[in-house]
This record gives sequence, C-alpha cells and structure tokens, in this order.
Amino acid sequence: MDLDKFFYPRHIAIVGASSESLNFGGSSFLFKLKESNFPGKLYPINPKAKEVLGLKAYSGLSSLPEPPDMAMACVPAQSIPDLLKDCARRGTRHIHILTSGFKEINTPEGRRLESLVESISREKHLFVIGPNCMGPYCPAAGLTAWGAIPGLKGSIGIISQSGGNTQRLTEYLYFLGVGVEKAVSIGNATVLNSLDYLEYMWQDEKIDIIAMYLEGIDDGRRLLDLAREVCRTKPVILWKGGESGVGAATASSHTGSMAGEKWPWDAFFHQAGVTHVRSMDEWVDALLAFSCLPKPEGKGVFLIGGGGGNSVTNSDGCIHQGLDVPELSEKTMTLLKKTVPTVGSIAGNPLDDWQVFADPAYLGRILGLAYQDPSVGMVVVDRLIPRKAFHAFYDTDPTPRVIEIIHGLGPRKPTVFTVDSEGGDPDLAQKGAEMRARLCLAKIPAFPSLERAARALRHLYDYHRKHP
Amino acid sequence: MDLDKFFYPRHIAIVGASSESLNFGGSSFLFKLKESNFPGKLYPINPKAKEVLGLKAYSGLSSLPEPPDMAMACVPAQSIPDLLKDCARRGTRHIHILTSGFKEINTPEGRRLESLVESISREKHLFVIGPNCMGPYCPAAGLTAWGAIPGLKGSIGIISQSGGNTQRLTEYLYFLGVGVEKAVSIGNATVLNSLDYLEYMWQDEKIDIIAMYLEGIDDGRRLLDLAREVCRTKPVILWKGGESGVGAATASSHTGSMAGEKWPWDAFFHQAGVTHVRSMDEWVDALLAFSCLPKPEGKGVFLIGGGGGNSVTNSDGCIHQGLDVPELSEKTMTLLKKTVPTVGSIAGNPLDDWQVFADPAYLGRILGLAYQDPSVGMVVVDRLIPRKAFHAFYDTDPTPRVIEIIHGLGPRKPTVFTVDSEGGDPDLAQKGAEMRARLCLAKIPAFPSLERAARALRHLYDYHRKHP
Repeated sequence: MDLDKFFYPRHIAIVGASSESLNFGGSSFLFKLKESNFPGKLYPINPKAKEVLGLKAYSGLSSLPEPPDMAMACVPAQSIPDLLKDCARRGTRHIHILTSGFKEINTPEGRRLESLVESISREKHLFVIGPNCMGPYCPAAGLTAWGAIPGLKGSIGIISQSGGNTQRLTEYLYFLGVGVEKAVSIGNATVLNSLDYLEYMWQDEKIDIIAMYLEGIDDGRRLLDLAREVCRTKPVILWKGGESGVGAATASSHTGSMAGEKWPWDAFFHQAGVTHVRSMDEWVDALLAFSCLPKPEGKGVFLIGGGGGNSVTNSDGCIHQGLDVPELSEKTMTLLKKTVPTVGSIAGNPLDDWQVFADPAYLGRILGLAYQDPSVGMVVVDRLIPRKAFHAFYDTDPTPRVIEIIHGLGPRKPTVFTVDSEGGDPDLAQKGAEMRARLCLAKIPAFPSLERAARALRHLYDYHRKHP
Repeated sequence: MDLDKFFYPRHIAIVGASSESLNFGGSSFLFKLKESNFPGKLYPINPKAKEVLGLKAYSGLSSLPEPPDMAMACVPAQSIPDLLKDCARRGTRHIHILTSGFKEINTPEGRRLESLVESISREKHLFVIGPNCMGPYCPAAGLTAWGAIPGLKGSIGIISQSGGNTQRLTEYLYFLGVGVEKAVSIGNATVLNSLDYLEYMWQDEKIDIIAMYLEGIDDGRRLLDLAREVCRTKPVILWKGGESGVGAATASSHTGSMAGEKWPWDAFFHQAGVTHVRSMDEWVDALLAFSCLPKPEGKGVFLIGGGGGNSVTNSDGCIHQGLDVPELSEKTMTLLKKTVPTVGSIAGNPLDDWQVFADPAYLGRILGLAYQDPSVGMVVVDRLIPRKAFHAFYDTDPTPRVIEIIHGLGPRKPTVFTVDSEGGDPDLAQKGAEMRARLCLAKIPAFPSLERAARALRHLYDYHRKHP
C-alpha cells in the first residue's frame, strides 16, 4: 500500500485554513509547517481569502496549479463527502481528515457522514487518514504540522489513536535524543486502519521500532498474526487505551472505537510478543531503552550506586520487576574488596560505594569488569545530584567524563543510569532533567527512578528472550 | 519514654568534629547546625584542636561547662564504648551514634562492639540512637544537622532505617510545603528500636502522620499490635526495605537487620491498617495526599481535563488502581451538556473540555457541582503546560487564579492536580515542578502523572475506609 505521499508529499493543500485567526487545525497546521520550513509547496484553500499567513490562497482544489500529493481536510464534517469527491476529481488520492463529528459523536448524522467517508473512499480508491485526528508527521520531510517542532529524525514509527498522546510522545522523544521517522495519528481509522499502518511501517526500512497507541481493534486475529510477524524483526511497543470498562466507554466517544475490553489482550501480548505498556512514562521509557541498548545476555542486574537504603530498595525494585540481582564473579569481587571502604559502604551487588560518583575512571574500571562478569546481564548506575542536604561529593559535574569513559569501553552490556529529581524543587527538576538528557543524547538511557529503569529493562529483556 | 532531648536539646556535644576538613559526620553536622542557626549551644569535642569552625573546642565531655542534653558521637567504632561511659559519668543520657562498623559489617569485632553498646547503655540507662545512622532532625528546634536545610516545620514524624532516604524525603517534602515535626534515622537500632520511636511519635501531639522506612524488625507481633493502635488516630505510611531476598541480604550489610522476608508482611499491612508503599515516589505522594486532603466519601473519581486519549487512559489508570470513574448526576450533566462543545470534546466523566485550562471560573463552577454530586468522592484535574507542540490555550498561567477559586469554594472533596512534565526537556521539567509546587504550597496536591495521583488517592481512600 503506497502511503509514502502522506509522509513525503511534494505539495499539500490545506483545506479550510482561516485567514482571520490561528485556529487549531487548518491555520495552525499551516503556521507550523511554515515554521518548520516545510520544503514542499503549501496551498491554503479558502474561498473567502486572497492570502493566508502570507501565502496565496485558492478557492478550491480545482484552481490549484497542480494536483497536490496530499490534502489536509479541516472543514466541517458535512463538507467532507464533497471534498473527497473533489480530491478524486483533481487526482489527489491521499487525504488526511482532521475534522471531528463522525461516528465518535454517536448521532445518526455522525454515523451517516462516517459511512459516506468510507463508501466514497472505497469507490474512488482514496487513501484516507482519519477522520478526527492529527494525521501524518515526518521530521525527515519537514512535515511537522504538529508534534515536536522541529522534529528529530530517527527510526521510530508511531501509530496512534490519540493525537494528544502522540504530540507529547514526539516531544518527549525529541529531548531524549530518540528520533522519529514517521508518526501517524489515525483517529476513527475509517478507511486506513491500524493494521494497514502496521503493515506499512513493517515494510519501511527506515523504521526499526514501532510504537502504538490503540483504542479500537476491528480484526483481532489479523492483528495477532501481523504483530507476531512484525515482532520477529521490529519490536512493537503498544499502549492499549480502553483496557478498563470505563476506558472502553470513553474510547467509544473519543474515536468511535469498540475497545474490545472483552478481547483477551493479555494472551495477545504474550502470543504476539508485543511489549505491553500502560502509561506515557512506560511508553517513553521502553522506546528509550529499545532504541539505545543492545540485547541483554541475561536478566541479572548489577546495581552500582551509593547509599545503604538505596541499595536495599533498588534490589527490591529489580526483583519486583522480575529481574535478578546476582552475586558477582570472584574476579569482580577481588577488585571491589580492594577498593571499597569496609565501613559505611558495601562491596558486592548492589555496590554501595560513593567513589563511583566522584571518580569516573573508577566507575569505568568497575563497568569494564562487569562487562566481563558472566552473571551480569545489565547494569544500572544510580547517580545523585549534588544538593544542599547532602555532603558534597564533587564540585563539577563529572557526567561528560563519565560519558567519555563509557563510550571508550567498547562493546558494552545494556547500561542505564537513574537520576532522581522528582522532589518538587524546580531547580533540582531542571538539573536532573539536564543530566538525564545529557546521558540520553549520548545514547546512555537515564531514567528518573529505579522503578522506571527496571521496568524498561524488563521489557527489553523480555523482547529479546522471545526473539533471540 | 522521654526522647524529647534528642529533638529539642539545649546543648549538643559533637564528639569527633574535625578542625581540618569538612568530613561527613562531626564537622559537617556542626557546619550545618551553624548554617541553620541552631539556637542552643554547640560544643565541638576534639582533643587536638582549640577551635572547630570558629567554635571553642573541648578535649572531652568532662571539660564542658555543663552536661550537654545530647551527644552526637562521630568517633571510630572502637572508641564508642568508652564514650558511652563518659556520657553516663557526665550525666548525658541522650546519645546519637553516627559511627558505622558494628554488626552491619558482620565481623567478630563489629558484633563485639555492638554488644558492648547495648550492654553499657542498658546498664547506665542511656538512650541511644544508632549506631550507624544520621540521628535526629527537628526543624522547629533548628536541629537540622542533615536533611532539608532550613527544614520546614509541620506535623509529619519520620522513623527511618536509611539516612539517605530520609534526607531525600525531608527535602522533597520541603518543596511540596509538607512540614516535618521530627525525623529520626535509626540505623542498627541497637538500644532504641523502631517500636520505641513509633510509640513515642504516637504520643506526640505535634505529629499527625507517621512515615516509616524499615529494614529489620525484631518483634513483629508487637509491631502489629502497636501499629494497629497508632493507625486508629494517625496514618502510618511504611516503606519496607528488604522485601525481596536480595534486598533482605543487602539490608543485613546495611543495618545488620534481619529483614524478615519470610514474615507475612502482606497480612501485616492488611491487619494493621498501615499504608504500604514501595518507592520514594510513592512515599512522598502518599504523605502529600494525607497531609492535605480530607476524608474521601467514596472511591468515585471525577476526571477533569482535555484530550481524548488522555481521558481514555486516565480512566484506565484509575480503574487499574482500584478506584471508580462513575457516571455523574443529572444536575452535573445538565451543566456540562450546555457548556461542552459537542465536537472534539466529551461531556461526562471523564470530562474532555479544553475550557477548563483557560477559564478558572468555569473550572470552579464544575468543581462546585462535583462537590455536590453524590457519585463523586474525589476529583483529579489534569493540567497541561503550554508547550511548543500544542496549540496555545492560554497566554498567562492561570494557576494563581485557579488556586484562589478553589480556596473560595469552601469545604471541598479531595481534589488533586496532575501536571505532567517528565519529558526530558529541562525547561519543561522546571516549569512543571514550579506549577506543581505552587499548587502543593496552596495545599492542593499536584502529581507528575495520573498513575501517581491515582495511587496516592487509593491509599487515602483505603486508610479512611479502614478507619472511619
């Protein structure tokens, strides 16, 4: 199925771009496409205006100098059927419908219009994204009418039944240095459905990992078969909205979806090998881990940090996620026993040794040993940010040197950092986010808590165990 | 048991305060006590110095002008037994031992010294906090040798077997406007144990809520009986370190504790009515909720926010936590149907209506109705921070006006906000933390995610259900 024109269009008609205010939709899309220097042509369609945001406006598709590769439809629902026919006439077969007011409002008129969208599209062989959605997003093409602007190019594919969640996801990934190849907010999925997009992204060589947010599902059996195939080569990380009865009812008003809360989702995730996440945080964390980390050779975690209570509860946290915190090899222990103070610290796994905060070279030596230790499958390094209540353990932030040393270690086992800054102190929140971002941009995932790190590592381990 | 002198001492002898460097312990405690303007007298004990940090130093307890109310012992483990005898001789019965190197290092010498600490203390009737811990903390007394400096006075009591975790907790609570009356880091709990402190804080009229972090427990039966009693009047929020086998083994090296991982902790939490948390985030969140919110009349949550996907997954998140998202009364629905746009929004519960972000008065009207709606037990308001990827929904932050309006509503049902800013963008992290802090300081709890908000509300609901 050729959906490329949705993501790499040479020209876009924005149908319903107001010249009077920067409404959400037509004119805001146009504004953002201009802001992100979309390299193709932009044709605002507005029968009453000569210009919109400094661009020549056209009265309709028929007056355009060429058939646009894609039309973004931002006009009221009742005009959509005629617009689809206009598109077919003009030779534009790729249409994104932003407009709401179809089956999701659950009125006879809404359902009638939804049917018309479907029948006209089938008859005229139109590809339609939506209605009731944000549509396509592709940073490499400068196609960022919504989401992170400018976008960050990368190898994530996103298929989502929530525009809001996808906007946030693209932004979050941006700051963590995880780039997106294509994202699509699919709305009511009337013509093109989630399976069509999944198949498309499966075949897309630029995409390595697929993130999905789904509310409804028409053909569970096909989803299972397809997802199982996709997961052999590309991890699929799926957030299923409407798992609960109330969520399912809400999904019906949101995208008109049958959320299938009776469908055996647990069995589906297990059989398909799809990674199951339940929140925005979990979604982002898993994508960060999958996009930066190699395959773990085992589920034994080596916990490196400082603080006795921390060591105890971080162990608990890993075990709670189904990971192990194994004993280290003799070789590793020999070094640790030589270097870790007997009093106030603990040599072993977890390692409670404040030197790791202050001395990047020492941390590097420990990591080097851990990478050779057969009991260690993954490593979590806990870092504390200097703050007033603590005794200072360094003056200048050693993070750049830590990154340098880790990069110098050569092939490494999955290694992540935890930097806790969720204390309500705005200054600390900023510093913590900065330290995490710095590590993430260097492809060393960093999480705001052990719980989130362990959960992401468990997902990574599970995926690779099922797909060796 | 009279432990008051630990928290409101008129004079403190800091035994082992180095004049040469600001080591962790003696001199850092002294430094921080000076910094926080401790109003009592500070006596550094250092036989080799004339002055420490500008204060006259003494060669020993015997040379002090008066018996200090409390001694903080920061000398090597092998000197501790003699120091205890000195204290007894001088009439100082309240001693905090920071020093490590006792049973937690699991050597014959460590165990021998631990036994000596116990036998001397019993024989001389000494009250001893520790060894191997940070000791007491009391903002109202200016006693902040560690933890948030300056501390924030309030009504939380903290009993913890981890100094590090307690430092962080006091800091986190500070920025959320939740004040602490007394905190104690109890270490190996050789003489005074967790039950002694619990009994003490139970009787303490200044304390309303008790936070605990426990690794070991000597007498589970007594803990159960006592905790059950305490919970009748004061919520106890307990983080149990060493729940897993590995965590328990680590606890043994940390505080020499038998973590009792075979003990039926689940049954304990259930029978005692103690609130069970499993991470720093969950601990802080529960304390924030308990300290700000009234008793919920039911577990029905009214979800107010904007965004369809958000509405679906926030419903899922509440149900996942065992809460309800009920239908609203006709009266509430009548207003909503009048004011919520039919297209692109959803009137009901969850409420998907962007007006609530921009119009505090409108939010106030909805809250007013919700407080009269019998199906609503609690309210969660989701707020988005303006960011580049979104269409702007307000120019100036309406949070101050929102706070004003909520305060003007009079008696209210438990109402919390969620402000998500965990995207890795340091600027957003700071803005989000600022918005949350602003709400929290106005006694309106704000959390960084729906999951965390729902978990805290579930704890609040459970406590009040068990203790009507």
